[in-house]
Amino acid sequence: MKRRKFITTAATGLAAGGLAAPAIAQSPATVKWRVTTSWPKSLDTLQGSVDDVAKRVAALTEGKFELRVFAAGEIVPGLQVLDAVQNGTVEAGHTLSAFYYGKRPAYAFDAGLAFGLNTRQQHAWLYYGGGLELVRAVFKKDGLINFPCGNVGVQMGGFYKKEIKTVDDLKGLKMRIGGLGGRILTKLGTIAQQIAPGDLYPALERGTIDAAEFIGPYDDEKLGLHKVTKFYYTPGWWEGSAQDSMIVSLAAWEKLPQSFKDAFEVACNEQALLGVAKYDVVNPPALKRLAATGLQIKQFPRSVLDAAYKASFETFDEIAASDEDFRKIYGPWKTFLEESNTWFRVAEYVLDSYRLSQPIPK
Amino acid sequence: MKRRKFITTAATGLAAGGLAAPAIAQSPATVKWRVTTSWPKSLDTLQGSVDDVAKRVAALTEGKFELRVFAAGEIVPGLQVLDAVQNGTVEAGHTLSAFYYGKRPAYAFDAGLAFGLNTRQQHAWLYYGGGLELVRAVFKKDGLINFPCGNVGVQMGGFYKKEIKTVDDLKGLKMRIGGLGGRILTKLGTIAQQIAPGDLYPALERGTIDAAEFIGPYDDEKLGLHKVTKFYYTPGWWEGSAQDSMIVSLAAWEKLPQSFKDAFEVACNEQALLGVAKYDVVNPPALKRLAATGLQIKQFPRSVLDAAYKASFETFDEIAASDEDFRKIYGPWKTFLEESNTWFRVAEYVLDSYRLSQPIPK
Repeated sequence: MKRRKFITTAATGLAAGGLAAPAIAQSPATVKWRVTTSWPKSLDTLQGSVDDVAKRVAALTEGKFELRVFAAGEIVPGLQVLDAVQNGTVEAGHTLSAFYYGKRPAYAFDAGLAFGLNTRQQHAWLYYGGGLELVRAVFKKDGLINFPCGNVGVQMGGFYKKEIKTVDDLKGLKMRIGGLGGRILTKLGTIAQQIAPGDLYPALERGTIDAAEFIGPYDDEKLGLHKVTKFYYTPGWWEGSAQDSMIVSLAAWEKLPQSFKDAFEVACNEQALLGVAKYDVVNPPALKRLAATGLQIKQFPRSVLDAAYKASFETFDEIAASDEDFRKIYGPWKTFLEESNTWFRVAEYVLDSYRLSQPIPK
Repeated sequence: MKRRKFITTAATGLAAGGLAAPAIAQSPATVKWRVTTSWPKSLDTLQGSVDDVAKRVAALTEGKFELRVFAAGEIVPGLQVLDAVQNGTVEAGHTLSAFYYGKRPAYAFDAGLAFGLNTRQQHAWLYYGGGLELVRAVFKKDGLINFPCGNVGVQMGGFYKKEIKTVDDLKGLKMRIGGLGGRILTKLGTIAQQIAPGDLYPALERGTIDAAEFIGPYDDEKLGLHKVTKFYYTPGWWEGSAQDSMIVSLAAWEKLPQSFKDAFEVACNEQALLGVAKYDVVNPPALKRLAATGLQIKQFPRSVLDAAYKASFETFDEIAASDEDFRKIYGPWKTFLEESNTWFRVAEYVLDSYRLSQPIPK
């Protein structure tokens, strides 16, 4: 109600004092932010969802809060989003917090951990399970505040030249996989490498690498990696919930009027829903197209998942032992995971199991 | 930008013509809506989410768009929400569209069908799979427009005095279950009854009924039905996605300025996310508390699910044969379900299956 009141008072002042109109036209002040992302424009799902946030914020504020969206590389490279926000180059950025786990391992909780919470559980934990508070305490150390803003869901396990039949097949495998997933796979003998998406095709073609993971069918298809590999594996166990976040400079955030804060937050929350929904619509036909090329869709054998599961929690334990921020979140996160899994086992999973085992009657 | 411009022009006019301040204070006009719900205040999850929509809309419009929320019975009974909106008693209502499947069977698609899409798939279908367009064409016939606004997820299968071991145990079973689920169970010999939640406890205690389904652990616990029954069954296959909707009078909607429409829609979308997240946090401890009372948590046997699955699709086919609106949606809905299931089987379900089969390392 405050701004409304202000406009009225100003208008009354105007009538009495005969001030020029522009004094009114300038209040409340227009705010312009630059928002950089980790995505090339070709990733229309991810980049598109940031455009959608900008549109919604503009509509809600009648154009007075403007977000100008930039793709990876236009202002800073895709993996420098967090730093660009931190050093004030831009006010906000859309990225995967896990990219910055090297800077602060606890950032990984914002995106999702291997074999951890699924998309729905991640939202539950963040919004009502105390997760957002815990994670924001970490971002605050860098002068930042994060907003959940989209999720890819369970990703695919990537493209492979050779079949993965046992854990031994992971040994010496030169694979493009970043972040914490790469660190876990290193435990199993994989030679994890960071390679930019645009360089993956030639790297696989020339045999510089043997395998590469990226996202899910819709995004993966664009890279054409199915043309230079034989196998497409599932599941991408290292990213059961790949949540994207809007990372904002706390200094810029605190300067916003309350209604702009509301507009920004609600638009991000909306994308936390719609980003998932969009992926769930574009991935099924993309998988079908990929399968039609002759690419073999394979599931990691149980022995490989068992080894990866063990290696994942060992890795978390190691990080928790040496990093206080990570340790502080790891305990409550594990408790939440356990309790949430117990409930999901009882209702959601039981029905999904049954109906996914059945054909749809014609 | 339009409203901004209008304010400026009005203010300029004021300076020139010396009009009284109230002319400005009244523009843009304040809008007040009454929103009735199907929920008693005791259902703080559902009723609370409508309060949250109202708060967010008020914040986004600086109090200029006010939603006054009423619980079931305050204006109209809980099952008359759609009619109250249609006849202009209130501008909007929060309810489960499936309650009105007797009026128009196609309304059931808005909430979710037995063995149909799960929560994530329901969102995908509605927002990006053409579902909302199809469903809105039905609401339009009654002068209404619907907005997804929360989801309970897979519900429980209810409280039973006796164990359900075979399909025969459903025959002659007097059970409180409404809507389409009741119609499907009737095929299996169950005597389906509509009873108000407040009357369930005495009905079970006196033996007027043998079983009753309501929602999930958190809401069910409040009714105390575990004190007069022995078994609590899973899953509530008739509601794999129990989506709540905000149903709005088209006439009222069309009068809203664009920024109020944006505020209302985005607040509903936010609750489509947050309503699920809240349930996913309150249900696990409630289930634990219920189990601690000695209530036995049981899973419907496969033979019962098989019979229910068959009866469900037979029922849909029957309705489609006689109702054009239902038929128009049923075809594309089935196609979407099939394609979406294919994708969920490949990634999401494979990872959930694996990790839910594992204990969390200590």
